[in-house]
Amino acid sequence: MIQQFSHIAPLQNYLAEKINEGQEFSFVPTMGNLHEGHLSLARESLKDSRNSFCVFSIFVNPKQFGPKEDFHNYPSTIEEDIVKLSSLSKEMKKDILLFYPDNQQEIFPEGFATSITVDGLSKILCGKQRKNHFKGVTTVVYRLLILLKPHRTYMGLKDFQQQFLIKKMVKDLLLSSEIISLPTIREKSNLAMSSRNNYLTPQEREGEALCLYNTMLRVKHALENSSLSLKEKISLFNDEKEKTLGPHSKWQYLELLDSETLKNITSKTKTAQIFGAYLCGKTRLIDNMTIYLNP
Amino acid sequence: MIQQFSHIAPLQNYLAEKINEGQEFSFVPTMGNLHEGHLSLARESLKDSRNSFCVFSIFVNPKQFGPKEDFHNYPSTIEEDIVKLSSLSKEMKKDILLFYPDNQQEIFPEGFATSITVDGLSKILCGKQRKNHFKGVTTVVYRLLILLKPHRTYMGLKDFQQQFLIKKMVKDLLLSSEIISLPTIREKSNLAMSSRNNYLTPQEREGEALCLYNTMLRVKHALENSSLSLKEKISLFNDEKEKTLGPHSKWQYLELLDSETLKNITSKTKTAQIFGAYLCGKTRLIDNMTIYLNP
Repeated sequence: MIQQFSHIAPLQNYLAEKINEGQEFSFVPTMGNLHEGHLSLARESLKDSRNSFCVFSIFVNPKQFGPKEDFHNYPSTIEEDIVKLSSLSKEMKKDILLFYPDNQQEIFPEGFATSITVDGLSKILCGKQRKNHFKGVTTVVYRLLILLKPHRTYMGLKDFQQQFLIKKMVKDLLLSSEIISLPTIREKSNLAMSSRNNYLTPQEREGEALCLYNTMLRVKHALENSSLSLKEKISLFNDEKEKTLGPHSKWQYLELLDSETLKNITSKTKTAQIFGAYLCGKTRLIDNMTIYLNP
Repeated sequence: MIQQFSHIAPLQNYLAEKINEGQEFSFVPTMGNLHEGHLSLARESLKDSRNSFCVFSIFVNPKQFGPKEDFHNYPSTIEEDIVKLSSLSKEMKKDILLFYPDNQQEIFPEGFATSITVDGLSKILCGKQRKNHFKGVTTVVYRLLILLKPHRTYMGLKDFQQQFLIKKMVKDLLLSSEIISLPTIREKSNLAMSSRNNYLTPQEREGEALCLYNTMLRVKHALENSSLSLKEKISLFNDEKEKTLGPHSKWQYLELLDSETLKNITSKTKTAQIFGAYLCGKTRLIDNMTIYLNP
């Protein structure tokens, strides 16, 4: 069954009752416009027998958009989203509680002025182009976690930096929810699923948009298959990066970082992460991939 | 009795036992070099019968000092501090648990990277001169509150902006400790007590340092006694400010703000706060005073 809450207080009362009965639950925070990436998070969470039900939030968080970004045009498809969640709840035979706040005050009450940042890591990759983006993300996730107190929170690895920062924040601020990251879900073409894919024309979607995935895959193969030293691998990657990020390039970044630290790779790095951001027309696409450097 | 803890874990175990027994406790966070201002916070907290004992922390927090500030020279007088706390504990017939961490890692573990800011309000008054100061304060107080979970936390109104920001943070981040602010304690001369007063020469302490208090008192009387309109009061204050903050002035700021909002006063303002910061020799002194605008 799907139950809808537009206010936080009745949802908190409902959760308190369930907690009292000894139930545990999962949480999937989203901005709506649901695709299989979002749904798979809820589905996987409900496969875990410890989670009696799933709280699924749809809230387009103004704090994580820049002044020139697409906050006011962010695609809203609430009716379709409810149909999808409803059918997922039937499939999994467990309840989904949809938290779809009426207004921002449900999450950020009048006068709210505190913000939470993960220093350093908020300023690399997407944080370079999107000033204050991650501050908005960590602040809204803090509020959701402290308001709802879920046992387990599920996030997609497509937003690798996001889940990394949130895990760091949860550890540093001693929050009690476990953060569980699940693999990126892709379209048949291998394009990483994203609500922003809806901005693409059919031609872009089957063509140019794929260069993000294809470039990263090519670099991954080059770095994994070679018998090169670390120094040579770094130099190979830097050549690739220079070719890719020319003066008129549509790439915003292409980076190779240690998956565990999000710092430069070293001789100790076992797995690295390649990160890319690409402007396809006016649509900003991101993706990432794991590279096994020392198999 | 005074009990000393240099590690957080044994203190947390001790507190968990007491909580289990249904006891409640107060918390006084300090940087040591104790004077009657600090001691009065512990004393008042122990007068409250709900507080069975007081946790008193002494931790010189590196995050709240700027690179050119006095972190490395901040006066440490731990032996004298322990004697004072011990005698206070006897006087009040209640236990004081002194948390005096061995090293920074007890509060900020290796790799800690998250910070908490109260937007806007961290950048005014002392936040203007002391970049990142309040970010350091709110972050350390968050950690202490979440590690210790005190029922009531006591702070002095000498640091008005500090207790204001912490109350805001506690509200926004839904922390459970009640923040209780108590009046500034003054020397006989009316100089506000501060660990930094020890930097003053005897001549400065009885002479020049008093101009902070005396100026604010004069302005307070002028604003409270007059039958002037709000506009005239603001203009009177601005004249006073202009006279005080000349090009070679030792004043860092002199400000008049609404006590409830820390914004400019309006026709709705009932009580205002006058804030001053003054460089006496190399010693930075701050003070503030309540002004009843519409008695």
